[in-house]
Amino acid sequence: MQLHARRQLAAESIFSRMSRLAAVHGAVNLGQGFPAGSPPEFLLEAARSALGTADQYTAPLGSPALRQALADDLAVNADDVVITCGATEALHVLADALYGAGDEVLMFEPVFDVYRPQAALSGAAPVLVPMTLDMSSGSGQWTPDLDALEALVTPRTRALLLNSPHNPTGHVFTRAELERVAALARRHDLWLISDEVYDELYYGERPLSLRTLAPERTFTVGSAGKRLEATGWRVGWIVTPPGLAPEVAGLHQWATFCAPAPLQAAVAAALPVARQHGLYGQLRQAYGDRMRLLAAGLRDLGLAVQEPGGTYFLTALAPGLDPFALVEHGGVAVIPGSAFYAEGAAPAGLIRLAFCKPESEIERALQRLGAFLKA
Amino acid sequence: MQLHARRQLAAESIFSRMSRLAAVHGAVNLGQGFPAGSPPEFLLEAARSALGTADQYTAPLGSPALRQALADDLAVNADDVVITCGATEALHVLADALYGAGDEVLMFEPVFDVYRPQAALSGAAPVLVPMTLDMSSGSGQWTPDLDALEALVTPRTRALLLNSPHNPTGHVFTRAELERVAALARRHDLWLISDEVYDELYYGERPLSLRTLAPERTFTVGSAGKRLEATGWRVGWIVTPPGLAPEVAGLHQWATFCAPAPLQAAVAAALPVARQHGLYGQLRQAYGDRMRLLAAGLRDLGLAVQEPGGTYFLTALAPGLDPFALVEHGGVAVIPGSAFYAEGAAPAGLIRLAFCKPESEIERALQRLGAFLKA
Ligand SMILES: Cc1ncc(COP(=O)(O)O)c(C=O)c1O
Ligand SMILES: Cc1ncc(COP(=O)(O)O)c(C=O)c1O
Repeated sequence: MQLHARRQLAAESIFSRMSRLAAVHGAVNLGQGFPAGSPPEFLLEAARSALGTADQYTAPLGSPALRQALADDLAVNADDVVITCGATEALHVLADALYGAGDEVLMFEPVFDVYRPQAALSGAAPVLVPMTLDMSSGSGQWTPDLDALEALVTPRTRALLLNSPHNPTGHVFTRAELERVAALARRHDLWLISDEVYDELYYGERPLSLRTLAPERTFTVGSAGKRLEATGWRVGWIVTPPGLAPEVAGLHQWATFCAPAPLQAAVAAALPVARQHGLYGQLRQAYGDRMRLLAAGLRDLGLAVQEPGGTYFLTALAPGLDPFALVEHGGVAVIPGSAFYAEGAAPAGLIRLAFCKPESEIERALQRLGAFLKA
Repeated sequence: MQLHARRQLAAESIFSRMSRLAAVHGAVNLGQGFPAGSPPEFLLEAARSALGTADQYTAPLGSPALRQALADDLAVNADDVVITCGATEALHVLADALYGAGDEVLMFEPVFDVYRPQAALSGAAPVLVPMTLDMSSGSGQWTPDLDALEALVTPRTRALLLNSPHNPTGHVFTRAELERVAALARRHDLWLISDEVYDELYYGERPLSLRTLAPERTFTVGSAGKRLEATGWRVGWIVTPPGLAPEVAGLHQWATFCAPAPLQAAVAAALPVARQHGLYGQLRQAYGDRMRLLAAGLRDLGLAVQEPGGTYFLTALAPGLDPFALVEHGGVAVIPGSAFYAEGAAPAGLIRLAFCKPESEIERALQRLGAFLKA
């Protein structure tokens, strides 16, 4: 008696593994992307009020209040919003809705770890499009290779999965890049999945939503966990092209039925408050400061640092560094760049560091890393 | 541009549809299975305390405290527990873990609506084994046809999915039935999935867990939503055969990553309290009273009623009744028996009624149903 061959996809992710190793070795955890702090008090308060009033199933489409709050926040139609158990489930359901055996799905490499196994679970083949790290401009600049993208489209291509701001590189796709992607999708009649979970976390220009350029074919994915500093709440969403929400919800109902009801109610109440209180601007300020602190510290240690346009991650080059030795003997957890590569080779010494952690932790991590690199 | 052929599985479920129609027509909702009341105060209080302390990702396996609380409650090893976004996701992940294209999965008909589409999403073929309604004993008695089960095993059969107490019939599988199932599974080397979400809701003999008879091959599925009257919380679990939890969690991480963290923490705190306070006995008492109220009222209206051994549903025969006419013109929502049949034909006039509703609602439903049947 054997598990199904899908067991091959079941390995512990590098994020879970590094968090576990960080705990075992008492390391500062700049690995997994979750904030060190608590969600804002107005969100917690909204959840406390929802408990006892919103504890039973919502419809698979999601609570009407949350769908409306998102429609207001994102300037979309509430009928086109589906609420899911986090962005992870949103992406999983879209994989089932959009492709299967015999299909190909384009995605950029370095690639967020869930995309490839989710495509494989749907039966489709992930096709990786390189993002290149151009070192001619000093400490390095990430660029999606859109010529390679064009060349990799085949008659089997069904969809392109894009992530902006991009994990792990922090790249924010420019208007010109997105226009080229939208035109290509129209020319080849492809679906677009735009993972925008870091839509409010940017340090330069505000990210453009791909949906605005190709509304008829774009599914946008978002996450209350990322926006509201509550990664464990498992409230995410999909904005579908007009008319497709019921079909997407119809598949979501077989995966989880609905998202957690009291937390849906709390997020519905908190989204307008987050705007009014300027929460996202505060987060950009705070995370921007920490990003610059971390970047400067790494540069002082001699690393080439790629400053991100968004997300709470940055990449850096530390040639010769072994992240598994670092977490065990150096007391710092980071993610090896190789974790984001399946076909291409990661640039030598590439690591990803999360800066959604207190400044004291970042400073401690820098000290420890410095000592480890010396030894 | 088309959605994938899986869109055929995306129809709105009869439960969602009836709840929607009940709202539209102001009907008493004895359709969908969620309690009318709130969860117990000690559960809500535990959630209020967890907020602000357990808001970030847990490991995909689940929070250690909840895995331990379940191990204590179910007398299993915490290492064999995986926490999911409700029993729905548990069943979905097990379908991916255990079977795929070319495989067959046995399940009893009448069948809970998620089982067939989940099997189909995994690529496997659901094979339905009849439960028969024997009317020789007065108002009717449901029995699984275990001879048919034996006859339906083929070389492609990979698993048997069993539900006890059973939705919609309320049948509690007897020790003799479960022993025969376990022996058959051993003989043919099949996996067993035992959906025990109603394990604490029984009105006669205490249900036996299939796991105790075949621990090496049984995956048990449970739900905090059902046990603790919080169907919207989306906290479920799987007890795996020894050693398989990491592989199951490894697939769950691609579906939802983890279950809602603050609600996991609350359930962990509440499970021992539920035992100490005798919550489950109180629910059995309260629901047993309502079940008898509903059954007696239906009998007074001339219906044949099958009294359930467990769950918060009962079935009855109302030949000639059209549930869609009833919800629109009679002001009562029930589920048509045909919703649970894909291959066999439902017994004439079969309906399912939920009695997890206040006595006043049940009485109102009985009056309205009486008036509708007269007219
Ligand atoms: C790019 C990207 N998409 C999706 C997710 C998953 O988000 P959620 O926690 O809402 O499932 C993450 C989490 O790290 C992410 O980085
Ligand atoms: C037999 C059965 N299994 C599973 C479920 C789903 O449980 P959950 O709400 O935990 O997803 C239900 C819900 O009605 C059910 O009746």
